[in-house]
Amino acid sequence: MDFTEKTLESTSIFEGKIIKLRVERVALPDGREGSREIVEHRGAVAMVALDEEGDIILVRQYRKALEQTTLEIPAGTLEDCEDPLACARRELEEEIKMKAARWEKLLDYYSAPGFCNEILHLYLARDLSASFAEADEDEFLEIVKLPLATAYKYIFEGKIVDGKSIIGIQHAFWALRGESR
Amino acid sequence: MDFTEKTLESTSIFEGKIIKLRVERVALPDGREGSREIVEHRGAVAMVALDEEGDIILVRQYRKALEQTTLEIPAGTLEDCEDPLACARRELEEEIKMKAARWEKLLDYYSAPGFCNEILHLYLARDLSASFAEADEDEFLEIVKLPLATAYKYIFEGKIVDGKSIIGIQHAFWALRGESR
Repeated sequence: MDFTEKTLESTSIFEGKIIKLRVERVALPDGREGSREIVEHRGAVAMVALDEEGDIILVRQYRKALEQTTLEIPAGTLEDCEDPLACARRELEEEIKMKAARWEKLLDYYSAPGFCNEILHLYLARDLSASFAEADEDEFLEIVKLPLATAYKYIFEGKIVDGKSIIGIQHAFWALRGESR
Repeated sequence: MDFTEKTLESTSIFEGKIIKLRVERVALPDGREGSREIVEHRGAVAMVALDEEGDIILVRQYRKALEQTTLEIPAGTLEDCEDPLACARRELEEEIKMKAARWEKLLDYYSAPGFCNEILHLYLARDLSASFAEADEDEFLEIVKLPLATAYKYIFEGKIVDGKSIIGIQHAFWALRGESR
């Protein structure tokens, strides 16, 4: 069955630093018309960063959209046309002042496909060493180190409530159990 | 450390059916000013629906934001002030024409806390039986039944790319392995 919704008219509502918003009038599969509100985002990277002890490095930061601080894996928004792995390396240095010698792609996913095109590129970053990169001017955060098993438990205790962190930690926890590091 | 960003000015940009958008001028922790683009969403529910054979019921639908069809767990947006479990029961009937006798809360999470306040309430729905509810007028979808282990594999093959589906399937796959149904 072809469910494609053809765009009849597209109206740009907003162009910001992080997102754009447009509204589209579309032709539905049965010939009627519908409307779609679409948030455009350049995409982002996030990484499960594990040190030699098997601890995961997390960041606590204030999220204005939630009016609360959250505990998340390090992450950042892609610059225009930036390679995702290059962005991940940059963000790891800017956010937690670490470099990783070993990078593995975990998966790519869409955070909210019902209304937003944001794609998340998730990595596993290991063999960490200190870096001396400059921090982002606009970022205020606290670095938190936890055993990976504790971070996994935090998901079910409501202490980690961010989607990309949950996916990355779930994946790393099950993929690495029993692996000797 | 207090990272709270106090709102200095809030400007409403858009009010739609699914989302609202506002831009806030905020006071950063160091006293400088910043700007935050915030997408408001009423929140949503989604459910891992498993039948007696341990198969998961998924829906394939067109996502205009991605310009492609996706395979996702059944889900829907909360009506104003709606109880999440009541919404989950309603959406399960509307989307896959099933009722579930057994509901368990899996977890709540935020899909994109960097710019959006959407919360997702995730459930496990079991003991399914046919229902005869009316479908949503505006929804065109195909119902897909798969072994849970196949759906889990699809995550790593890039065939399931939706965040809520990945979190729900990961969770159900590991929580239920070995459980006799």
